[in-house]
Amino acid sequence: MSLVPPQKRPPAVPAASVTVRRSNLALVLRHLRDRGPRSRARIAQETGLNKATVSSLVADLARRGLVVDTGRDLERDGAVGRPGRAVAVGGQAVAGIGIELNVDYVAVMALDLRCDVLVDERRPLDVRATGPERTLDLVASLAADAIRAVEARGAAPVGITLAVPALVETAPGVVGFAPNLGWRSLPVVDALRERLGAPSYPIAVDNDANLSALAEAAMGAAAGTPDLVYLTGEVGVGSGVIVAGELLCGADGFSGEVGHMPLGEAGRTCGCGRQGCWETAVGLAALLRKAADADDPVHDRGMDLEARLVEIRRRADSGDARVLAALHEVGASLGVGASVLVNLVNPAVLVLGGYFAAVGDHLREPLLRELHDRVIAPDLGGCRVELSSLGFTAAARGGAWVALEAVLTDPTVVHPPAADPPSVRRERIGASAAGA
Amino acid sequence: MSLVPPQKRPPAVPAASVTVRRSNLALVLRHLRDRGPRSRARIAQETGLNKATVSSLVADLARRGLVVDTGRDLERDGAVGRPGRAVAVGGQAVAGIGIELNVDYVAVMALDLRCDVLVDERRPLDVRATGPERTLDLVASLAADAIRAVEARGAAPVGITLAVPALVETAPGVVGFAPNLGWRSLPVVDALRERLGAPSYPIAVDNDANLSALAEAAMGAAAGTPDLVYLTGEVGVGSGVIVAGELLCGADGFSGEVGHMPLGEAGRTCGCGRQGCWETAVGLAALLRKAADADDPVHDRGMDLEARLVEIRRRADSGDARVLAALHEVGASLGVGASVLVNLVNPAVLVLGGYFAAVGDHLREPLLRELHDRVIAPDLGGCRVELSSLGFTAAARGGAWVALEAVLTDPTVVHPPAADPPSVRRERIGASAAGA
Repeated sequence: MSLVPPQKRPPAVPAASVTVRRSNLALVLRHLRDRGPRSRARIAQETGLNKATVSSLVADLARRGLVVDTGRDLERDGAVGRPGRAVAVGGQAVAGIGIELNVDYVAVMALDLRCDVLVDERRPLDVRATGPERTLDLVASLAADAIRAVEARGAAPVGITLAVPALVETAPGVVGFAPNLGWRSLPVVDALRERLGAPSYPIAVDNDANLSALAEAAMGAAAGTPDLVYLTGEVGVGSGVIVAGELLCGADGFSGEVGHMPLGEAGRTCGCGRQGCWETAVGLAALLRKAADADDPVHDRGMDLEARLVEIRRRADSGDARVLAALHEVGASLGVGASVLVNLVNPAVLVLGGYFAAVGDHLREPLLRELHDRVIAPDLGGCRVELSSLGFTAAARGGAWVALEAVLTDPTVVHPPAADPPSVRRERIGASAAGA
Repeated sequence: MSLVPPQKRPPAVPAASVTVRRSNLALVLRHLRDRGPRSRARIAQETGLNKATVSSLVADLARRGLVVDTGRDLERDGAVGRPGRAVAVGGQAVAGIGIELNVDYVAVMALDLRCDVLVDERRPLDVRATGPERTLDLVASLAADAIRAVEARGAAPVGITLAVPALVETAPGVVGFAPNLGWRSLPVVDALRERLGAPSYPIAVDNDANLSALAEAAMGAAAGTPDLVYLTGEVGVGSGVIVAGELLCGADGFSGEVGHMPLGEAGRTCGCGRQGCWETAVGLAALLRKAADADDPVHDRGMDLEARLVEIRRRADSGDARVLAALHEVGASLGVGASVLVNLVNPAVLVLGGYFAAVGDHLREPLLRELHDRVIAPDLGGCRVELSSLGFTAAARGGAWVALEAVLTDPTVVHPPAADPPSVRRERIGASAAGA
């Protein structure tokens, strides 16, 4: 399996036919990923492509290693004809790589087309103290390790997506403003592309909460839910909204900014410089401030965040009144803001991620009480509250998931392993005409 | 042109082929509506259907009166072949009917497929005092008038959508709760269907702000904007959100409830029974309370709302300090809540409808100041603020627009005027196989 930049492939058929062929290959591959293994006849029926075209498309995808014949017979697909043999997405050919940069760690995740995990690494890192240049060096080195690891397993990397707690200008690949990292107007995609030797596949950057929401919708506790609001608590508070199965990106990719709703404690200054933002009542700093004195070790940012949260949980579980009161207060404030989102979006699921998930069972009761008081639709409009099962891996997973889009949009970025013999080549050209 | 219920048409080809044929007819019709007149060759190129199939589909749609040959030659569509003749959506065959019920009026609008207005009626009505039964009688009688009017122009009604300021359970067609009408758990679709003699076309009910948002995105000042937030001020405050060109409906159709965000005046009781809802600071009652004493005629609900707003505007334009201060205060509160929506959704346009549009030029400055203070993304994330040009017709227009969906989803609900001659029938069956 190797990646060949599109401009290097010879033009075999007219441009319009190539475009249609490519989009039909993508249609079939995505259909199999989203709907599961099924016969060629059923794919034809469900997509409206004719059966000969589907057979040709499946053969083409199989040569690229992107689909496999499962060898299993399936149910009969129509009134006539033999039962179909199932084809399925192949897991071995390609890998998407996601990298999350957060305030105090870098995490790398590589997934194949079946969302099986090929690489899962995490390193503590004080990003603010390390500075952008050295941080990007480390990110590039972790990415290079991940690339080597997936290639050693015979898979071609098809994309890298960096997740950052920031306002991101996705089109040029620039971190506009990441207050908690201390980054501003940083062209991270260009920086990574240069450090990785200008690979042919896409490198992208996106907001961490948006990518986490995609991961939750694709492979988390609420997987498959088309309408989902993801709320994550870390130093800041972020959200990602999935509407009818698609990420709500907004006009310029700046959606999901909920941390600064004017619902916090009046007069308390936020990191953004405003007063009374929601983040000042529900961010990690708010919980720690309410739960423990300033010299308590849970405030020690040199200590791993998960370990600090384990300690908070331990105290809550053992009945520590101050910690329980702090969690109750945060849960109620979380409910006030969450009710705004539930009233506006009417999601089927509200997923709590980041530190909210780690202490979620203590937040749930006051949160639900506020939601029931404040959501206008009966029974919360059908919304249920779930704790993320992806924990702090959600953003990197979402990045890897998005990186795989490159091949789902254009499967021809993955080249068959060897030159096709002439008979197969003839078949492909004929099939292109049929698919056009 | 006549509507025949689907179950009465004879099965000519296998079910799967009929389904594919229908969805391809819909694809071509919607393509022409959304992208404008174009040649058959270009439709083929853009949809991926082959040219013979497109020609057959266009011929079929033309027989149903849904597309017309414009007789105009267009640009050449590819490297080879003659320039194509443009086909376009036909305006004469069908009509969608929208009816808006608001606190003190009923409005009816019928639109053809080109969004030309066939019927535009409005009657004052005190819905709460009239009660549901007599109100629905009047709605049915206005609908019957509209049906007769469109049929007299040779068009077949294909659907009716009722717009209501309410939480609506769209699937069973029930108004769940409309506090300002005093309605609760009212099966309005069944009630209308019965009063209209069980017509074969769909009757639906939806939230007025959602339908208004669709009208704004389809034919308002911000038409064509894929990411849009619509905010309407009447007795209550509602919103509709368009994301990537689609209405954000939510899991159960309860989206867009923004009136009760806890951003209002602390301690002021809302119509919903809660304290401090945003509606108490920006709803029509808030403006009137701030702008005039209780015995001022602008409070007179017996007087037409638009006339009262004209009077408010007149006083503002003539420098009435109290009215100007009231508008300034409402504009600022509007900006506080709007910033929550802009931060979450990152729309390209924020459209102000209802009374906000009527006095919008006085609200704009304080509104923009709050937005600039509170929106996290630079330059409001690219969002601009527009006043609705559809005024109080937006919801009925949106209803008519949605009613037309019936024919855009399945053009075969419109039957050709006479039986096809045998030669045409053969062509259609052959075309079905090609399109499958």
